[in-house]
Amino acid sequence: MSQTISQTMHAVGLKAYLPIADENSLLDITLPVPTVQNRDLLVKVKAISVNPVDTKVRSPKSKVEENYRVLGWDAVGTVVAAGSEVELFNVGDEVYYAGDITRPGSNSQFQLIDERIAGRKPQSLSNAEAAALPLTGITAAEGLFERLEISNENSSNKTLLIIGAAGGVGSIAIQLAKQISGLKIIATASRPESAEWCRSLGADIVVNHQQDLVKEIRSHGIYYVDYIFCLNTTARHWTTMADLIQPQGKICSIVEPEANIDLNLLKSKSASFSWEFMFTRSMYKTHDMIEQHNILNYIADLIESKKIKTSLNKVLSPINAANLRIAHAELEAGNTIGKIVLTDW
Amino acid sequence: MSQTISQTMHAVGLKAYLPIADENSLLDITLPVPTVQNRDLLVKVKAISVNPVDTKVRSPKSKVEENYRVLGWDAVGTVVAAGSEVELFNVGDEVYYAGDITRPGSNSQFQLIDERIAGRKPQSLSNAEAAALPLTGITAAEGLFERLEISNENSSNKTLLIIGAAGGVGSIAIQLAKQISGLKIIATASRPESAEWCRSLGADIVVNHQQDLVKEIRSHGIYYVDYIFCLNTTARHWTTMADLIQPQGKICSIVEPEANIDLNLLKSKSASFSWEFMFTRSMYKTHDMIEQHNILNYIADLIESKKIKTSLNKVLSPINAANLRIAHAELEAGNTIGKIVLTDW
Repeated sequence: MSQTISQTMHAVGLKAYLPIADENSLLDITLPVPTVQNRDLLVKVKAISVNPVDTKVRSPKSKVEENYRVLGWDAVGTVVAAGSEVELFNVGDEVYYAGDITRPGSNSQFQLIDERIAGRKPQSLSNAEAAALPLTGITAAEGLFERLEISNENSSNKTLLIIGAAGGVGSIAIQLAKQISGLKIIATASRPESAEWCRSLGADIVVNHQQDLVKEIRSHGIYYVDYIFCLNTTARHWTTMADLIQPQGKICSIVEPEANIDLNLLKSKSASFSWEFMFTRSMYKTHDMIEQHNILNYIADLIESKKIKTSLNKVLSPINAANLRIAHAELEAGNTIGKIVLTDW
Repeated sequence: MSQTISQTMHAVGLKAYLPIADENSLLDITLPVPTVQNRDLLVKVKAISVNPVDTKVRSPKSKVEENYRVLGWDAVGTVVAAGSEVELFNVGDEVYYAGDITRPGSNSQFQLIDERIAGRKPQSLSNAEAAALPLTGITAAEGLFERLEISNENSSNKTLLIIGAAGGVGSIAIQLAKQISGLKIIATASRPESAEWCRSLGADIVVNHQQDLVKEIRSHGIYYVDYIFCLNTTARHWTTMADLIQPQGKICSIVEPEANIDLNLLKSKSASFSWEFMFTRSMYKTHDMIEQHNILNYIADLIESKKIKTSLNKVLSPINAANLRIAHAELEAGNTIGKIVLTDW
């Protein structure tokens, strides 16, 4: 089965960096619809979400490029064509995915995606609710379960600190960590409304990372934490993390520090530090790329059994350059709670 | 059963740093024999080994201290008294251990040691052969099996790079890694005799870390390595390690860099970095301290079944300040192959 697909499509792109307040920073453009091959799906995009990676990839102040760059690494849509080696999906399936940073993004009406990094869209969610989940969900799941190696087997009666827990990744991370029985979750947030958001998602303790985190956490009778998931300025929290981590404990971060780091602070504790970068698998074509398919399906299961909920907080419509500029501007201002999604072309 | 124990003992100590060529840098002294309690064993020390940690702990150029500092974190001896809570050993047992950096070291005729960090001396080895093993054996085992999480289950068909493999820790690490079926071991060494030593211990490939390691390793058809165990100047090899590590791979080091580190080099690969510091467990009294007892007994088993051999390379006798100065001087000069041991008072 296949559908009639037009030759050209709407998209939003750029050829050079401009501040987001400039109306040319993101442009409505028309591009040819790409052709499927191998394990690629061609997806008709229904909803997209924005993430800090979008503003980062938009930002390099390089000279004007020849071709448009299409951003966007979060989408929900319908499979409209499949490459000859596709085996996980059929035309007509609804999918959701974050995608591959080395390929054109999801800010376009049609997008190619390797089936191994796409999952089944949670059936109980609207397109907007589902679009909030893939990038943050994969990041949270890889960070917690693969880098920190948190599991039901290893982590009962242990303590996880999530620094900067009210944002996109944190909102899913709290809920995924909550699936581990006996794991205590300490979330940090800096404003009353973000603290309340973390509590509503399942955090056992919420502390303020604008205060002295060591003191705050120890005031709750917790001296060391077994795991730290840092979603907020690694460099600023480095000494605190070194103080708080349990001997032989594990730290994972998703935020690059701007300067070099004093790794020796972790030495006496034989502690470990891992990066979580959700594009590693697709960028390096690792043999276990399909784990992202599995993670997305696992998250769909949790949604459908009402164990976790979407972190969608705001919807803009339609998908166009003007609304994407609004979304980028909000991300750049910081303080986002949950996710911003755009729907429909 | 208990033995008559004298009131005083010979020891080697210092009250202030002096260069090792100075005959007062380490002194023959007399100290009271300590008293056992709780889970401590009192051990009559028969042989000791020296490690880089000795010269490091000797070196701080602080003012003259009131009490003698006793160095030494590797010993073989006989249990002559046991605290009331001891359950793993009996008086008369021969033990070997590295010890606890927060307590007086093994450069004394009698030493207290928590039974949870002591193991059964390998029966087939002389005291000198056994004294070469504990600190390096525990470091190698914790580094490979706990920090890098190498196992028969996970590591078949994977590749381990050991940087600086001819020294004390490397000499055991090669042999312990060799127990993992299907794990390919690349060792680095910089001189013909150290390269040959690594080969004799089981390294599959030996490359020269004075050359371009990336080129050297890729010339053997290996593009990325799954694990890196760095036993030699972390800072100098940092970029190389970032280039060579497999996406999602693990790096462990035992050597503190002198400057801050560009952690971002590992980000795109979601790689991890762990410290291995064998004193973590005793220093922080972790709940799993007894793992060092288990590691030492595991190494004794491997020795007795002839699967690994001691890394002893040189014996000095008796144990006194003059011979310890010779041993420290050799360590400070670098280029040690295997271990230097001192026996008998």
